[in-house]
Amino acid sequence: MSDKKISVGIVMGSDSDWPTMQAAAVILKDFGVAFEARVVSAHRTPDLLFEYAETAAPRGLQAIIAGAGGAAHLPGMLAAKTTVPVLGVPVQSRALSGVDSLHSIVQMPKGIPVATFAIGEAGAANAALFAVAMLANGDAALNAKLQAFRAAQTEKVLGMKLPEV
Amino acid sequence: MSDKKISVGIVMGSDSDWPTMQAAAVILKDFGVAFEARVVSAHRTPDLLFEYAETAAPRGLQAIIAGAGGAAHLPGMLAAKTTVPVLGVPVQSRALSGVDSLHSIVQMPKGIPVATFAIGEAGAANAALFAVAMLANGDAALNAKLQAFRAAQTEKVLGMKLPEV
Amino acid sequence: MSDKKISVGIVMGSDSDWPTMQAAAVILKDFGVAFEARVVSAHRTPDLLFEYAETAAPRGLQAIIAGAGGAAHLPGMLAAKTTVPVLGVPVQSRALSGVDSLHSIVQMPKGIPVATFAIGEAGAANAALFAVAMLANGDAALNAKLQAFRAAQTEKVLGMKLPEV
Amino acid sequence: MSDKKISVGIVMGSDSDWPTMQAAAVILKDFGVAFEARVVSAHRTPDLLFEYAETAAPRGLQAIIAGAGGAAHLPGMLAAKTTVPVLGVPVQSRALSGVDSLHSIVQMPKGIPVATFAIGEAGAANAALFAVAMLANGDAALNAKLQAFRAAQTEKVLGMKLPEV
Amino acid sequence: MSDKKISVGIVMGSDSDWPTMQAAAVILKDFGVAFEARVVSAHRTPDLLFEYAETAAPRGLQAIIAGAGGAAHLPGMLAAKTTVPVLGVPVQSRALSGVDSLHSIVQMPKGIPVATFAIGEAGAANAALFAVAMLANGDAALNAKLQAFRAAQTEKVLGMKLPEV
Amino acid sequence: MSDKKISVGIVMGSDSDWPTMQAAAVILKDFGVAFEARVVSAHRTPDLLFEYAETAAPRGLQAIIAGAGGAAHLPGMLAAKTTVPVLGVPVQSRALSGVDSLHSIVQMPKGIPVATFAIGEAGAANAALFAVAMLANGDAALNAKLQAFRAAQTEKVLGMKLPEV
Amino acid sequence: MSDKKISVGIVMGSDSDWPTMQAAAVILKDFGVAFEARVVSAHRTPDLLFEYAETAAPRGLQAIIAGAGGAAHLPGMLAAKTTVPVLGVPVQSRALSGVDSLHSIVQMPKGIPVATFAIGEAGAANAALFAVAMLANGDAALNAKLQAFRAAQTEKVLGMKLPEV
Amino acid sequence: MSDKKISVGIVMGSDSDWPTMQAAAVILKDFGVAFEARVVSAHRTPDLLFEYAETAAPRGLQAIIAGAGGAAHLPGMLAAKTTVPVLGVPVQSRALSGVDSLHSIVQMPKGIPVATFAIGEAGAANAALFAVAMLANGDAALNAKLQAFRAAQTEKVLGMKLPEV
Repeated sequence: MSDKKISVGIVMGSDSDWPTMQAAAVILKDFGVAFEARVVSAHRTPDLLFEYAETAAPRGLQAIIAGAGGAAHLPGMLAAKTTVPVLGVPVQSRALSGVDSLHSIVQMPKGIPVATFAIGEAGAANAALFAVAMLANGDAALNAKLQAFRAAQTEKVLGMKLPEV
Repeated sequence: MSDKKISVGIVMGSDSDWPTMQAAAVILKDFGVAFEARVVSAHRTPDLLFEYAETAAPRGLQAIIAGAGGAAHLPGMLAAKTTVPVLGVPVQSRALSGVDSLHSIVQMPKGIPVATFAIGEAGAANAALFAVAMLANGDAALNAKLQAFRAAQTEKVLGMKLPEV
Repeated sequence: MSDKKISVGIVMGSDSDWPTMQAAAVILKDFGVAFEARVVSAHRTPDLLFEYAETAAPRGLQAIIAGAGGAAHLPGMLAAKTTVPVLGVPVQSRALSGVDSLHSIVQMPKGIPVATFAIGEAGAANAALFAVAMLANGDAALNAKLQAFRAAQTEKVLGMKLPEV
Repeated sequence: MSDKKISVGIVMGSDSDWPTMQAAAVILKDFGVAFEARVVSAHRTPDLLFEYAETAAPRGLQAIIAGAGGAAHLPGMLAAKTTVPVLGVPVQSRALSGVDSLHSIVQMPKGIPVATFAIGEAGAANAALFAVAMLANGDAALNAKLQAFRAAQTEKVLGMKLPEV
Repeated sequence: MSDKKISVGIVMGSDSDWPTMQAAAVILKDFGVAFEARVVSAHRTPDLLFEYAETAAPRGLQAIIAGAGGAAHLPGMLAAKTTVPVLGVPVQSRALSGVDSLHSIVQMPKGIPVATFAIGEAGAANAALFAVAMLANGDAALNAKLQAFRAAQTEKVLGMKLPEV
Repeated sequence: MSDKKISVGIVMGSDSDWPTMQAAAVILKDFGVAFEARVVSAHRTPDLLFEYAETAAPRGLQAIIAGAGGAAHLPGMLAAKTTVPVLGVPVQSRALSGVDSLHSIVQMPKGIPVATFAIGEAGAANAALFAVAMLANGDAALNAKLQAFRAAQTEKVLGMKLPEV
Repeated sequence: MSDKKISVGIVMGSDSDWPTMQAAAVILKDFGVAFEARVVSAHRTPDLLFEYAETAAPRGLQAIIAGAGGAAHLPGMLAAKTTVPVLGVPVQSRALSGVDSLHSIVQMPKGIPVATFAIGEAGAANAALFAVAMLANGDAALNAKLQAFRAAQTEKVLGMKLPEV
Repeated sequence: MSDKKISVGIVMGSDSDWPTMQAAAVILKDFGVAFEARVVSAHRTPDLLFEYAETAAPRGLQAIIAGAGGAAHLPGMLAAKTTVPVLGVPVQSRALSGVDSLHSIVQMPKGIPVATFAIGEAGAANAALFAVAMLANGDAALNAKLQAFRAAQTEKVLGMKLPEV
C-alpha cells in the first residue's frame, strides 16, 4: 500500500474473497492510488462494518470497493451507513455462480445506492478502474494515467493476431 | 397486539411490505402469541436495526420474523447481531418477482443462519406458524392449539368439492 | 452421538447426501446437542418417513434437520406429518446446482412451514446453528456456548490478514 | 363422471387448482374414459395421499394425473407409494410462474418416476391425452377415437386463416 | 436386446447421448422388456424420425423413450407423428446444463403430449421404469418384478449406514 | 400479399401467434418484398411442415421466418428439411415469458442453423428486417430502401423530446 | 434544467424509457445538480452516441447516467468512448423483466467499467443519488444536502405506522 | 484465408474467443468461402468497430459473424452501423455460462436485427453454415456443396452404432 493518504478502501467478507478482490488492489497500485485492503464481514463482524462505514468519510475515503458472495450484504450495509460512494463486487458463489451475490448487491431499494460491477475478477478490476475514473474527475495527473491505460489497452487488442485454421 | 409479554417481533423494511407481512400478524394473533410489528429498514434505519437486534434477547423475544424485498438485507443483518432465531420472508419484488429477495435471504454464509420461508404471503404466514411451532415445543397449551389448527386445516381440504365438467 | 436424550434428528434422502449433511452433525456435536442421523428417503422409504415424523414428538425431538436434492420432498412431507419444527437443507444437485432443491423445499404452501437454509454445506451447518439457537431460548448453558461460538467466529475474521499485492 | 369402472384418477392439492386441472377432466370426459377428480393435498392431507396411492392399484386405476403448484410434492409422493403410472402437472404459481412447480415434479431421483407435462392448462390437457394414449395401447376403440382427435386437430390448424396486413 | 417382440424403442439424437440413455436400456434389460436402441436425430435425420414414428404403432411399440439435448425436438416431433406414448429425457447440455433441453421437451402445446423426466441419467432410468409401469398395467408377471424392484430399492435405503462424526 | 414471386415465407404454429408475427408481415409489405403468411404447426401438422420445407427451395423462397412459442420446434424442424435460411422468432409464452421458446429455437446443435431473434414482436419485426438485408445484398433498389428506413429511424430518435421534470 | 454548468448527463435509448429515467432527473433537480436529459440510442443513433461520449469530458460532465432495456448497449458503449464515469440503469423489459437489461449492462469485461444499479425506477433514482455522492466528495454544500436527504429518509421510515390486525 | 474476394468477416472481442470462433472459420474454409478473421473489441477498440462496420459494405462483405461474451455488444453495435447481415455468436462466459452473452445479443430492439445462434462452438459453426446458406441462395455451386454437406451429415448419423448393454 502507498504512503499517501488513503483514498480508497477495499473490503471483503472473507480472506477467501482475496483471489477475486486482489484484481482491484492491483489496479489501484498500478495507478498509484493509495488504498487499504481489509476483511470486514457483514455477518460475522457487523460492528466493524458499522465502524468502518462511520469512519470512512472522516478518514478521507473517496470510495469503498466492497466484495462479497452469496447473500452479499456488505456493500449495501456500508452504503446504508455512509454517503461515501460504495462500489459492489459480486463474488462468484459455489452453487449459484454469483447470481445470488449479484441480486443481493445490485437490487438495492430507492434511497441507498450501490454501484455494482460484474461477477468475479472482472468486476473487481472494473470497480477499481471506476474509482480511478471518479478520482480523475478532479486530478489531471491521474486522468492522464487513465487515458494512457485506455490507449495501451486499445493497442493490445489491435495487436492481437489470430492463428490460421 | 396482546398485553402479554411480547415473544415474537415482526419487522419489515417498509410499510409497503405490510400487505404481505400482515399474514404473519394474523396467524400470531389467532394463536394468542404476543407480538409486535414494526418497520425497521436495513438501509434507511440501520441504527434502529442494530438496536432492535441488540435488545431482542434482553426484551425476551424468542423469534424475529423479518420480511424484505429486492436486496433484502434485514433478516441477515438482524441475525448477525443477535442469536434470537430469525425467520426471513422474501417479499415479492417488482422486476424479479422475489427471486432477488429469496437469494438475499436464504444464501447466508456458514455461521449466521436465517430460516427462510416462501416468497410472499404464504411465506409470511408460514414464518408465523413456524414461530408458533417453536414456542409450542415448551408450551402444551399452544401445542394443542397448533394441533387443532392442523386438524381444522385438514378438515377444510377434506371438505373441498370439485364441480362437474 | 451423545448419550443424552436426543433432541435433534438429522435425516437425508440418501447416504450420498452425507458429505453435505455431516456439517450439521459436526455443529451439533461441537455444541453437545444430542442428535441422531439417519437416511430417510421420501420416495424410496415413504413409510419410514411417515413413521419418523409421527414418532418425532413422542420421542422428544425438538427439531428435525432434513436435507435432500432435486425434487426434494423430504422436508415438506415431514412437516406435513409433524408439528416439530423442520429445518430444510437443499442439497446441491448435478444439473441444476440445487436450484431445484431450493424451490422444492422453500416454496411450501401456506399452512405447513419448512424453515429453509442455503444450498449445500453452508445450509447444513446453519440449520444446525439455528437448531442450537432454538434450543438456547430455554437453555442458558447452551446459550452461553452459542455466544462463545459467535465471539470466536468474530475473532477469527478480525484476525484475517490479506497479503500484499 | 362416467358410470364405467374408473380407470384414471385426477387429484390436485387444492380446489384452487381446478381451473387448471379441469382441462384434464374435459379431455377424459370427451374420450369417454371413466375418471374421478378429487382434492388430495400432500401437505394438508398426507394420510389421504397415502391411502389414495395405496388403493389406486386395487381399485383398478391405470393412471393418476396429479397437479400441484409451488413446492409440489403430490405427484412424487403418490409415485413413491404406488406403481400405477403418475402423470404430474405443474400448476402455475404466483411468484415463480410454475418454475418451482416444474422443478418439484420433474426432477425426481432415479427409482421413482413421475411423467411430467407442461406448466398449466396445456399440461393438464396433455396429461389426459397421454393417459388416453396409454389406455389406447390395449383398447382399439379408444385408439380410434384418439386417431380421430388427432385428425380433427390437424384439420383445425389446416383451416386457420390469417388476416391481411 | 431381447429376442422377444420389441415393445419399447429407445432413441437419441446422437451417440454422444448414450452415456445418459444407456441407463434406460439397463433398466429395460433388467426387467426383461424387449427393446431396441437407435440414433435418430430430429435435425440431421428428420426423414428417419418420421419413418420411426410412423412405423412405431404397426411394429407394436408400446412406448418410445427419446433423449435429446439443447433445442431438443426429437421427443416432441415423434409425438407429433404417432400416438404411441413418448417419454422424453432432457440430456444435460454444456452451456445451460439441460435447462434448454427440459424446456424444449416439457413445454409442449396442448394437443401433443410428451411425458418428461428429470435431466440426465436419472431421467433416462425413470423413463424406463415408467415404461415398465405402463406395461405392468396389463402384465402381472412384469408387475411382480416391478414390486420386487421397489421393495429391493427400499431395502437398500433402509440398510444405509452413516459414519460417525 | 404482393403479386410478385414470393421470396419470403412467414409461418407460425397457430393463428394465436399472429399478433406477434404480423410485425414481420408489416415490415415486408412496407419494403415491397413479396411474402406469404401461413399457419404451419410442427406438432399438429407435421406433414405440412415437411412439405413446406421441401418445396421452399423449388418455389424460390429465399428465407423462411418461423415463429413459435413454448417447446418451439417449428423453426428447427424447417431448418432440418431445407437449406433455405430459417429465421426463428420466439413467441412470448404464458408461464415462462418466452424463455422456453428462446431456448427451443436458439440452442440448435452444430450442423443445422436457425437464425434467432428477440422474444416477441421486436423479434418478428427484426426477422423481417434481416430478411430484407439478406435480399438487399443482391438488390440495389431494396438496399436503397433499407438505407432510407435506417435513416428515417435515426431521424425519428433524433427528434424525440423529453418533458421537463 | 438548471442554468448552471451541466455536470451530469442523463441519456436513454428511447423516450419510452422516460417514465423510468425521470426518477433520476427528479433527484438531480431536487439536489440542484445541473443536468441534461437526452434520447441517445446505441442502435438507432450510434454516431450520436459516439459524439456524446467524446464531448462529455470537454463539456465538463462528471458523470453520465445511461438507461436502456433488452440488449442494452448504451451504457457500455458510452464507457468505451469516454472515461467520464458511466452509471447504468437496466430498464425493465417486457418479456424478461429486465434480466436481459441487467446482464447487458453489468457483465462488462475487464477494462471498461459501468457502475450498475437496480432494474427500473429504483435504479434510476439511485444512479442519481450516486452521482450526487460522487460530486459531494468535493462539494461541502452538496454533501450537506445529501446528509439532510439521508436524515429525512430515515425520519420518514421511523415515522411509519402499521395498522392493527 | 482464401485468395478470393472476401465475402464473410469473422470478428470477435478478444483472441480468447478464438477457441470458440474458429469453428466458424473451419466451416467457411471447408466450403471455400473467402473470409477474414479479426479481433475487434466493442469496448476496447470502439473506433475500429465503427470503421469495420462502415467499410463492410464497400468492401463487399455479405455477412459478418461476430462472437462475444458477457455484456456482448459487438454484434449489436456492428448491426447499428451497417446493413450487412450480422450473425451473432454468444461465447460461453465464466460465471453465467453464456446466458448473459445470449441476452446481450438476441434481445435487440425493433429496428436493428442481429441473427443469433447457440451459445458456444455449436453457435459459431452454425453461424458459418447460415452464412453459407445465405450465399448459396445465389450461388449454385456453393448450394451443391451445402447439399452434399447435409447429406454427409445425415449419413454420419445413420451410421452411428450404439453398444450393447
